[in-house]
Amino acid sequence: MFPVAPFTFNKLVIFGVGLIGGSLARALRERASLSGEVAGVGRSPKSVERALELGVIDSAASLDDDRALAAALRGADVVLLAAPVAQTQPLLERIAPFLEAQTIVTDAGSTKSDVVAAARAALGGRVAQFVPGHPIAGRESSGVDAALPDLYVKRNVVLCPLAENPPQAVERVAAMWQAAGAIVSRMNEEQHDRVLASVSHLPHVLSFALVEQILESPDAALKFSFAAGGFRDFTRIAASSPEMWRDVCVANRAALLAELDAYTAVLARFRAAIDASDGAALEEAFARSRVARTEWQERGAKKPADDFPAK
Amino acid sequence: MFPVAPFTFNKLVIFGVGLIGGSLARALRERASLSGEVAGVGRSPKSVERALELGVIDSAASLDDDRALAAALRGADVVLLAAPVAQTQPLLERIAPFLEAQTIVTDAGSTKSDVVAAARAALGGRVAQFVPGHPIAGRESSGVDAALPDLYVKRNVVLCPLAENPPQAVERVAAMWQAAGAIVSRMNEEQHDRVLASVSHLPHVLSFALVEQILESPDAALKFSFAAGGFRDFTRIAASSPEMWRDVCVANRAALLAELDAYTAVLARFRAAIDASDGAALEEAFARSRVARTEWQERGAKKPADDFPAK
Repeated sequence: MFPVAPFTFNKLVIFGVGLIGGSLARALRERASLSGEVAGVGRSPKSVERALELGVIDSAASLDDDRALAAALRGADVVLLAAPVAQTQPLLERIAPFLEAQTIVTDAGSTKSDVVAAARAALGGRVAQFVPGHPIAGRESSGVDAALPDLYVKRNVVLCPLAENPPQAVERVAAMWQAAGAIVSRMNEEQHDRVLASVSHLPHVLSFALVEQILESPDAALKFSFAAGGFRDFTRIAASSPEMWRDVCVANRAALLAELDAYTAVLARFRAAIDASDGAALEEAFARSRVARTEWQERGAKKPADDFPAK
Repeated sequence: MFPVAPFTFNKLVIFGVGLIGGSLARALRERASLSGEVAGVGRSPKSVERALELGVIDSAASLDDDRALAAALRGADVVLLAAPVAQTQPLLERIAPFLEAQTIVTDAGSTKSDVVAAARAALGGRVAQFVPGHPIAGRESSGVDAALPDLYVKRNVVLCPLAENPPQAVERVAAMWQAAGAIVSRMNEEQHDRVLASVSHLPHVLSFALVEQILESPDAALKFSFAAGGFRDFTRIAASSPEMWRDVCVANRAALLAELDAYTAVLARFRAAIDASDGAALEEAFARSRVARTEWQERGAKKPADDFPAK
């Protein structure tokens, strides 16, 4: 348990001001009424300029401009990386020369083992300044126009602190997410990647695979014509970003393969029961799932254990 | 294409007055303003009495009572079986001695090859009176209290006519569902079972399997704690009735196994791509799925081809 100090900041710098970064900025200002400066840094001028226009950030800098980048990072308390995980290492390498000693860097990537490796490679001896994190929140739409001040309210944020991180740095990042309304927990990065592979990455792969299988079948059009509510819910996530899920599958390869293999084993057992017309075995398994799924739904309003209780 | 006469009836008999049977009765009365008599027959007196109390049916009979059953079937135009598919054969055997020559029998089962076999076994030479059907509609809740007059509006109903069926019998069942607001199509029973195995039965099995796999893992509680929106939608159908899905899996065994095997083959290809970190192959497949799923969603408001156009 970590008692957490209330969060304030002088300057927060967000790399990638889209849905995730923009929602944090809006939450800290509109929800927590904090008045620190928020600087946005983007690869393309368009997205940061739009964020500036919307009042989500106070200043905008281009990643390619050394002077603007140095100015953005000068005096920063916290830096949030909110770009695709594959960009973590190049981003941290770009930031490193301008990184001041008091600045804490964190990220919002969906995978953590690869992010930790990228941070160690890019920051070396200064990796103690980097606290890996993952806000488990999102929307169908993306971009800063979709950012919401309450996106993180009652959502889970997982931190995967490094052995090198000073406790105060971890607590400060936890306090920031709590100020945005989130429930903050800690895991190590392997645990995080295993859990997310199971409840998020694997379902995405399974859902994409069902649509792919129908597309490959000779009567695809007929099948789509008669698909109804069950199909709709099961495949909603098959409309997710192909680029993002490609990156997640590659970044979390080992954990995802382990979960996929365990899943395939369960499916093989179900296949054998169907083949044998073993109704009792099927009913028993289905009943277990129904109970577990229903209990999960009912717990939904409450929420999981909180390692960083808000004061 | 089948031009369909407007539907009227003197007496409709519903076996199993729950969500499906009750919604048809309410639709014909409240939506189509038809004034024919509706008789309900049930295994337990409780459900038919509740239907009577709600005004969904005009008279109630117990399946076990010969005289009441004979009275219920006397002068019937249409009989609807709205009980679990495994009961089709015993129900039809029970009905057969009282079945008059003018009565058309249809059903609402989720599988059709097994229903056709059951009807042939139970009715023999009188199978021409049985028109197999499947209204593809439902709700989370069940029972006659959940019945709605608009449950079938713009929903698909598939008929799988037998070679023996007189065309007028098929058209009359089509007209009945159209009066309830449905879009009626025809397929043969193998085609129906293959299509439904793909877009309904397989997703249910896959969803049950994900919850089962998590339950079997050593960190199940942790995984459930961090499951979010993608998991919620993917597993909504894992809270479905274990009895019903046990029966569907067994009744549609052959078609379901074929779809499951095709799915497993796609999953094995995805696994190989993840294992090889072949991002390009993954992105290509995910992008195809996204396009297909998005187009399916957009077509949703319109609806599939209609073999029995309403006048």
